[in-house]
Order: sequence, then structure tokens, then C-alpha cells
Amino acid sequence: MQPPFISLLLCLGLLAPLAADDKPIIDTSKSPKAILHGVPVSAVKLGDGFWTERRRVNEEVSLPTMFELLEQNGILDNFRRAAGTKDVPRRGPVYTDSDIYKWLEADAFVLQNHDNPKLRALGEGAIDTIVAAQQPDGYLNTLYVKENASKRHTRMADNHELYCLGHMLQAAVAWKRATGETKLLDSGLKMVAYLLANFGPDKKPLMEGHPEVEMALIECYREVGDKRYLELAHYLLESDPRIKLDKWSIVYHNTGRPFWERTILEGHAVRAMYACSGATDYYLETGDRRYMDALDRLWQDLTQRKMYITGGVGSRESGEAFGEPYELPNQLAYTESCAAIGEMFWQWRMLQATAEAKYMDVFERALYNGVNSGLSLKGNLYCYRNPLELIGDPEDRIRNPWYDTTCCPPNIQRVLASLPGYMYSTSTDALYVHLYHAGTLAWHLEDGTPLEVRQETNYPWSGAVTVRVNPAAEKRFTLNLRIPAWASGATLAVNGTAQPAPRPAAYAAIQRSWKRGDVVKLTLPIAPRLTAANPLVRDDVGKLAVEYGPLVYCMEGLDQPAPENVFAWTLDLRVPGAASPAAFQAQWEKDLLGGVVTLTHQAVHSPAELAREPLYAPFTAGPLNQPAGVVKLIPYYTFDNREPTTMQVWVPYTR
Amino acid sequence: MQPPFISLLLCLGLLAPLAADDKPIIDTSKSPKAILHGVPVSAVKLGDGFWTERRRVNEEVSLPTMFELLEQNGILDNFRRAAGTKDVPRRGPVYTDSDIYKWLEADAFVLQNHDNPKLRALGEGAIDTIVAAQQPDGYLNTLYVKENASKRHTRMADNHELYCLGHMLQAAVAWKRATGETKLLDSGLKMVAYLLANFGPDKKPLMEGHPEVEMALIECYREVGDKRYLELAHYLLESDPRIKLDKWSIVYHNTGRPFWERTILEGHAVRAMYACSGATDYYLETGDRRYMDALDRLWQDLTQRKMYITGGVGSRESGEAFGEPYELPNQLAYTESCAAIGEMFWQWRMLQATAEAKYMDVFERALYNGVNSGLSLKGNLYCYRNPLELIGDPEDRIRNPWYDTTCCPPNIQRVLASLPGYMYSTSTDALYVHLYHAGTLAWHLEDGTPLEVRQETNYPWSGAVTVRVNPAAEKRFTLNLRIPAWASGATLAVNGTAQPAPRPAAYAAIQRSWKRGDVVKLTLPIAPRLTAANPLVRDDVGKLAVEYGPLVYCMEGLDQPAPENVFAWTLDLRVPGAASPAAFQAQWEKDLLGGVVTLTHQAVHSPAELAREPLYAPFTAGPLNQPAGVVKLIPYYTFDNREPTTMQVWVPYTR
Repeated sequence: MQPPFISLLLCLGLLAPLAADDKPIIDTSKSPKAILHGVPVSAVKLGDGFWTERRRVNEEVSLPTMFELLEQNGILDNFRRAAGTKDVPRRGPVYTDSDIYKWLEADAFVLQNHDNPKLRALGEGAIDTIVAAQQPDGYLNTLYVKENASKRHTRMADNHELYCLGHMLQAAVAWKRATGETKLLDSGLKMVAYLLANFGPDKKPLMEGHPEVEMALIECYREVGDKRYLELAHYLLESDPRIKLDKWSIVYHNTGRPFWERTILEGHAVRAMYACSGATDYYLETGDRRYMDALDRLWQDLTQRKMYITGGVGSRESGEAFGEPYELPNQLAYTESCAAIGEMFWQWRMLQATAEAKYMDVFERALYNGVNSGLSLKGNLYCYRNPLELIGDPEDRIRNPWYDTTCCPPNIQRVLASLPGYMYSTSTDALYVHLYHAGTLAWHLEDGTPLEVRQETNYPWSGAVTVRVNPAAEKRFTLNLRIPAWASGATLAVNGTAQPAPRPAAYAAIQRSWKRGDVVKLTLPIAPRLTAANPLVRDDVGKLAVEYGPLVYCMEGLDQPAPENVFAWTLDLRVPGAASPAAFQAQWEKDLLGGVVTLTHQAVHSPAELAREPLYAPFTAGPLNQPAGVVKLIPYYTFDNREPTTMQVWVPYTR
Repeated sequence: MQPPFISLLLCLGLLAPLAADDKPIIDTSKSPKAILHGVPVSAVKLGDGFWTERRRVNEEVSLPTMFELLEQNGILDNFRRAAGTKDVPRRGPVYTDSDIYKWLEADAFVLQNHDNPKLRALGEGAIDTIVAAQQPDGYLNTLYVKENASKRHTRMADNHELYCLGHMLQAAVAWKRATGETKLLDSGLKMVAYLLANFGPDKKPLMEGHPEVEMALIECYREVGDKRYLELAHYLLESDPRIKLDKWSIVYHNTGRPFWERTILEGHAVRAMYACSGATDYYLETGDRRYMDALDRLWQDLTQRKMYITGGVGSRESGEAFGEPYELPNQLAYTESCAAIGEMFWQWRMLQATAEAKYMDVFERALYNGVNSGLSLKGNLYCYRNPLELIGDPEDRIRNPWYDTTCCPPNIQRVLASLPGYMYSTSTDALYVHLYHAGTLAWHLEDGTPLEVRQETNYPWSGAVTVRVNPAAEKRFTLNLRIPAWASGATLAVNGTAQPAPRPAAYAAIQRSWKRGDVVKLTLPIAPRLTAANPLVRDDVGKLAVEYGPLVYCMEGLDQPAPENVFAWTLDLRVPGAASPAAFQAQWEKDLLGGVVTLTHQAVHSPAELAREPLYAPFTAGPLNQPAGVVKLIPYYTFDNREPTTMQVWVPYTR
């Protein structure tokens, strides 16, 4: 039953992991408040399917080319300069050290899953380069060395020293878990020791102007058990009261007051999402209720007022920030890839704390749409912004190989590389299946019983999922299968016996004594769905979005009959049933955009060329008698992978 | 027939102008390319009506309180500091000198129309204070004196030295025309002489980073006849090729390349509108066709792609800039008051050059809506932004008494003070009536024949206009009455005899031999109109705007039956005729918002409280079976004059 692609790779030995430590992406195995515990990236081998192709491109194209670009842009030379081995000017923004760290973490996740000698060698070389730049006292940041050494920690709100350290520590932990090598982690912890020696409640005050290091410190605490790392994270989350920031800075930087005082998501979206992630890590280790209360409030604000249907967050270019409630403009959507990624990190942590499926719904929404859109199909171009509408201006370069602030590309890379580690969790007496994709989990229950779980599915193109459960010995436990929020009408059968209809937005719990060869058949109703936004989202009034399983769809001009401009088209819902799945023609087009299901539907269009029509005109009967045609929709993540064209997620309708 | 209010003021001698020079706002009387020539502000006395109340508040509240605020905020002290008479730090942004100049120009326009001893004394004092700050070599700017004297003209893109001079010269010309006093003008021209001595094609290069001085220099040329002022304006409009700006600066600053190369409106909106105004002034004096070709292109771009229905322009907060074509978000609309005012200045100049009514349509749209909205009904609060949607957040302080960058308040003041001067023009053998309002023009035809024109109307609340034409002697000439673009079905009669149906968006030309007592009756069809935006304006899809004569309407939450949130409401057009004027109830409400016509219409509303509804939900039949109610609309210019509440101009509809 092994898909042929995987079998081939296994024969070639390419999928053999290097991992010295079989640990999950975040290791909540000893976290007092974690109900769920992840499985290692190494434990899951994906078969043919949606993410396998995306991950192949990530590994074969994105990671190697990004490493070259990091070299070309002097990011590694910055370390050589700091080490005194190369006399070059420092290049890039203050936070650019983090870019190579994120790349390294992505590399480590690849290596956790299977060996890749070329990527391993690149990573080892980078680690040597980085560690050589560490100063004798443990300080490590390429900006504040030599003539700038005296400026360390002088501009804590903006200088990103702790942000860079956070990414270094995350890379270091992932690298250790991939290879067993601790060189980078030792170096990172030396910098932490330097901080602990100099800063803290009874020493000099310290602040993080861009939350990130909290997650990393807590993962180091999980990895090596030193409680001072957890305490330092807590100190930063609480904010040192000796540091006074103005109101704008507190909002923008998402720091400067105790995390748990927050009531709304505001300010810089990436900072906000990373702060929430770190705060959830803190809750997982301590159970501090004030933190979870704040996180609950913020999650409501996120999902009920401030999240695009693509999972994108951060509406405003100005300050890369959250907007007002329901301020979700489509064309102007800022929706930085990193913000949606931070949102995923947060959801994953909330899920470990609660085992509630709603967090995975948001995770999956961001993953398939607002994050997935960030990498081009060929793997060489990245989105910083992921807008929901494009006017087709060739000057709008939404996808680029490099950004001066190139935070998003390696962030997307680490998500794709680590993806197998987000598919399953265990709890005391259960296995949880969060995501559906062909492949095999080889892991064990928490009592140590070895367990293989094999998924056969073409999700998200099809909703049919076969889950083969093979414990090493017959064993009573609960298999929890996630039923997405949109999956009303899902059906479930165990060894051919129908189960009670599973509830959407929940885990369908199948408690029984499992034995090798048991087969679960889950059918998720993947069909076109029409979705409306709350009328408070002013930009979406009179429009609807089309979804298909976890995928949000969009219209691109290139796929339409004349007129090509998508803004000329109005979905025609006047025929009874036009809003039902049956009104759409779903078709697998293997040669389009790497292979996608397209959706077509009846529509009407403006009789005249819109650009020649007046800006304002007397209101008339409108689309009632307009010429008709059939429009085609494609998955949002594939937008702008061809030539410049108009694009819209929210499509006007008439009925 | 004198309205009682005016008669009273005449009795009190309050309306007697001081004007030494009877000159219009811009004096195109000798401009080779001007078809039209304005009338002085002094020649028009408004009777009771819409603008009289707004102008009363401007004169009695806005101007005196703004003078106090300028003093309190150190703007006049900056001049005392420069003069060495007060030892205080300089306060305010680099361009703040312009704020007192704009205030002075507003004061001058008041005095052109009628005396106001208190305002006159304030102005005279301010002029003394300003002139005392002039440096021996003629330089006058409060930022670059004393320790900063060496920084003169070092940051020409940003330092606003010429911008401030422009506003000074405009104030100086207006003051001379009001009072005959030349002290301020002499001082301004001394600064111009300093510039001419040091800068120019064969001297040091000069650049204006914020267009404004071009208009002013050309008005000085018109006033005193020195052609070097026109040449300097031309030099600035062409941009000195020795000054190289990057692409971003050329766009943002609207300078750095010859004006006539421009093809689209982009960059900072106020800069763009002032540049267009100055360029039109240059065309009026020279007939340079390249300038008019560019202006024509830019005007198309303005009116067909980048103007809000309120006449507001400049969609983006970032860079206070024009957006992409059709990028006209309602809630995020930046729409700075100054930009709409600059747009009016430009329209007025285009009108003088062409006598085409389309320019006055845009002028009137901005005047009644996006500019008029900028001053609160009480006259003490100002808008910097004039958005088309508010979410009712009390933290959104849209109206404020003062801004650190307080450019808009005195700009609105000078528009209101000068308004009588925009109502009429003359051409060789004609009189043009541009705006309708009760009042009297006492002026003369271009051959010198004294002429009184009296308007009796309650415009814009009513479309009935009586125009009494009283030449001193019977005289053949053309009376041109502007028929607004929306006025299809207007009727016209002369001495009771019906005239051919006048064409909208044109001047109805009545050529005859006029004698004292002739009466023209114009009836403009003022009734509620439903207006749609081009579907390329994505934020307005599925919505419509309601207009009434020149007024754009909006909904405020305070006026609605429960639910109060305007975003819960959808205009119900399902009944045949619901889109017609008859479906609206228009009612004069004298005690509401200073007296307004309100419009009510059938609507439906969401059954649930929107803020408790999910952000995204399956699309359903929607408003078809929603509860019904009657919603009320008020003129846009009155928005946010009560307590914070939701507001929208573009209202969703169902049909």
C-alpha cells in the first residue's frame, strides 16, 4: 500500500531520518498543562499528494536557492565579519541574522524527516560560521560588534537582538533533534547565560521589542530542563516595570506591559502572533490562568473580528498591523506571510493545551491558504503580502525571490519542512489525527505500545480518507479524527460498520480495542461551499467566497471568458439551487497550476468595458439583464503563478 | 426683496467692504488664455441660506478661536523668536508658518467682503509680527534662522520654505486687495527678490518639495506685473534638471520632473492638487499646450478613477497619497480636507480656461461634501480626514480643534471666507452663474455696464432659483446659468416664457437684450437620487449612494430605529419604484444638525446583533426575509456632529 513515490525514496535511503532525538516540534511531553503531545517530524512519512509536492519543491528548490541568496546578500558574511575572518561592511536590516537561523531551522526539520547530505553540509557550514562570530562573553549578534559593540541593548524596542536569539535557539533545538549535534545550541545557551548574568529583575532591565524569544526560551527549558529559561521568558512576557514605553510603542511592539493585560489584538501582527505563541507556551508550563484568560479573549478577537478567510492576519500596511474590528480590506490586505505563520504556531500551542478542534480549523485554514500562497508553485518566489484582490498591475510584484526584509521566505520553508510534525498528537490514552494526507505514522502510544497509522486519501481534492490502524498489539485506546468545521454531513465507519454521524469542529472519538488491520473510513463532504462574511466586513458586502474543503478559491482574469477582468463578473445565483454544490462543475485539471480542482459556475458580466464606464452613474436595474457566461475559480494558494492578471477572492453575486 | 438678515447687516454697515482693489480671488482679467474672469469677493453679498450660516460660524467662531490656538501653540511666537523679540524655542512642524498665512488669507477674504474691526486688528497685528521676522537679506521663514540659518535650502524636498512663502504671498495679495495695505506683500516680494538673486537656471538650483508657491507667484505676477515671478513659477514647474530625485520622491513630492510629463495622479494628494492648480495658472498666462494636455489627462484620472463621491481625494494614509485606479476604500479613506480644497482650486482655474461646466460640477461636489464636512457645525472642530464610513469608535477622533499639522483648519476657513468670489464669472459678452444661493451680485459686464443680479433660492434644499437681472441700461449679453450634471429635467423660463430644456453638465446660455426687472426662473430637479459606483471600485459593490442636489447623503446610527448600527441595514429596493425619488420621504428638519433635509426609505435589517454573529458563515438566502424598518439619511457634511456613532455613505441594497 506504500505509494510508489515514497517507496522509491525509501529504496534510495532518502527518507531515513538522522534524528538523534525523537522529539516533536514543540516538546510538551512534560508540560503540566498539555493535554496533547506532538509526534516527531521523523515519525511521519508522507505519501503522494498535495503537501508532498509542495515539500519537494521546498527542499529541492526553495532551501538551496535561499541559501545562495543569503550568501549573495551578505547575511553569512555578517557573521564572518563579526568573527574577524572577512573584512566587509555589515549588510541587511538589523534583524537579518534571524533569516539564516530560520533557514537553518527549516533545514533541521528536513533532516529530522530524512537525510539530505547536501542540505546537511550547508547547515553544518552555516553553524560553524555563526558560532565563530560569538563574542568571548557569549554575546552573538552581527550588528552590535566592533565599532557598534557599545550599542548592545541600547535600543531594545527596535534592535531585535532577542528576536534573533530566539530564532537561533529554535534552529539550535531543531538541529540537535535532527542530528544530535549541540554546537549551535551550546552557543545559543551561552548567549542566554550572558543575558542571565547581566539582566533581570534584580539586574539591568531587559525588553524584547519583537516577541519571539519567549517561545524559544521555553523550548530550551523543555530541552535541557533549566528553569531559568522559563523564568526569563516569563520576565519578558510580564515586561520589566522599570522600562516605560509610550502608548504607541506598547501597541506596536506588543510588549511593555504584562501579556495577560491584553484584551484585543493590535499593533504589529507578527509580533502579536509570536507573543500569543510564547504566552501559550508559558501557560503550558505553568497553568497561569491569567495567561489563558487573555489568550481566550485574543482568540475570540482574532477569529471573530480580525482574520481573513484565507487565515491571513494584519490588515494594515501602516505598522504591518491589525486594524479595527472587521477592517479586512481585500485589495489593501497586508496579510504578511509571517503573521499567518505565527497564527499557526499559536493555534498549535492552544491545541496542545485544550485538544479543541477549533484551533486546528484556524491552523488548517492558514496552512492551506494564507501561508501556502506565500510560496510560488515553482518554489523560487515568495509573498510578503498575501492580498485577496489584485488589479492586475504588472508593477505589483507580489511574488519575489528576495526581500530586503526577507523574513517570510525562510519562515514558509520551516513550516513546510516541519509539516509532518503537525499531523498527529497523542494524549494519555488516545491518538489524535489533525490533518489528512496520504502517508504513514510510525510512533507509539503514550504507554509505549508501538503504533503504525496509515492514511490513504487524496485530500484536499477528495474527502475520502482511509485510516489503517496497526498497533503492535491489540490495545484499547481512543482514535480521535478531526472533523473540520465545514464538514457537516461527514460519515465514519470502522471495519465497515457505520458510526454515529460525527460532529463538525470537533474530534470524532472512536474508543475501542484496536488491532492490526482495523480500517476506519472517514468521508468528509468536500464540495463547493458559498461563504458569506459578517456584514460588518464592509468590503465583502454583496460578495461571497467559494470554498472547497480546506481550500479558499479565487478568480483570476486569465481563466475567464471575455471579459477577462474578474471585476466585470457577478456570480449568478438567480436560478434555484445556484448556491448549492451541484451548481458548480468541479474538475481536476492536472496540467493547470501543478494540478488543481477548478470550479466553474454561471455568472453574468458587465456589457461594457468597465474602465471606459464612468466612475459614478445613476443606479440602474444592474445585472438583471447582463450577458451570461461561465466563470472559473482556482485555489487561492495558486494565485499570481502565471502572468499578471486581476484576482479576487470575494466575488459579487446577484440573486 | 432683500432677505431680512442681509438688510439688517447692511443697516449696521457690517457688510460694507474695505476693499481698496476690486479684484477676484484669482485675477485672470489679463490672462491670455482665460475665457472667464472672476468677480471680487466684495461684489457678492449672500442672503439667508446654506452658506451664510456656515460663513457666519467661520467668521464668528472659527477664525477668532483658530487665531487663539495659533498663539497658544507658539506659531506667532516663532516669528517673535526669529525677530529676536521673544526668547522661546521654535514650536510646530517645519511648515507651520503657513498656518498663520492661511489664516491671514481667510481673514483678508472676510475683509474683502465686509469690515470686521476685530478680525482686521488681529490680522494687522499678525502682519506686524511676521514682517518683523524678515532677515536683512529678505529671507523669511521661522525655522531657518539663528543657529539654523546655515540650513536654508539644504533640504529642499522636505523643508517647505517655498511652500510657506507661497501661502504668505497668497495672504499678502488677498490682504492688499482687502485693505490696500502692501506691508505683507512688500515683505513677501522681498523674499522673492532674495530667491531671484540667488537661485535659477544660471544660479543655484531651487526646488519646491511641496507645490504651492507656483500659484502664489503667478498671482503676484498678475498683481504687480513682474514677469520674473511667472518665470520663477515656470522654472519650478519644469524642475531644475540639476536636481536629481529618486523615483519615490518624484512621485511623493510631485516635483523633480517637468509637470507636463505627468500622466497619472500619484503621490501626496495635496501636493498633486496644488501642482495642478499652479500648472493651470501657468497655462492661463502662457497657453503652453503641453501643460493643458497634461492637465486634461490628469483630470480624467481624477474624475474617472480616483475621486470619492464626496469629492474627497487621496485614498491612502501612507504618504497621504493617491492610490491605484479605483482604490477608494470607505473606512480607510484618507481624504484630507486640504486635498479636496486643492482640487477646488484646480477646478476653478480649469473653469477660467475653458468655461466648461464639468469643472464646476467637481468643484461643487467637493465644496458641499468633502470640504464642507471638514468644519463642524459649531465651527470649532475640524476634520483632517473625511472618511466615508465610521465604525462608531469613540477613540476615532475625526473632528478636533487642533492638529500638530494644522493645515486643514485655516484652509477650510479661507475657502468659506472667499466663497462669494466663486459664484460668478464674466466673459467678453456674458455673465456666468456657477453656484446658486440667495444674494446679490453688484458688478459690471466687461464693457463696463453696471449690473446687479439677484438670486432668490433655498438651494440646495430646493431647486427653485429666481434670478433677477438688472443691468444699469438695457444691454445685449449672454446669461449663462450652470446646469449641474445631475440636473436632467431642469426647466428654464425668462419673464414667464419657457425656454428650451437646458442640457445638464453645461451652461444654459440665454442670449438676449436684458433690461432691469427681467426675471429668469430656473428649476433644478432636486430630489433623492440613487448613485452606483463603477464595479471596479471594489468597496462599493452591492452598495449605492444617495444624493440630493449637490449633497451626498449618509446614514448615521443615531438616526436609525433599532438596530442602531448602520451596517445592519440594507436598503430595500424590491418594491417596484423603490429606486425612484418617490420612494423617499424628504423632510426639512429645522432642529436637526442646524437644519437639514433628511431622507427616509424602506430597509431591512439583520435579525441578529451583527457583533455576535460569526465572522464567516455559510451563505444563505440573506436579506430576503429580514425584518423591515425605515432608515434615515442626513447630508454627509453633517456627519459626526453629535456623539460617536456608526456612519456610512455607501449603503448596501437588496432588490
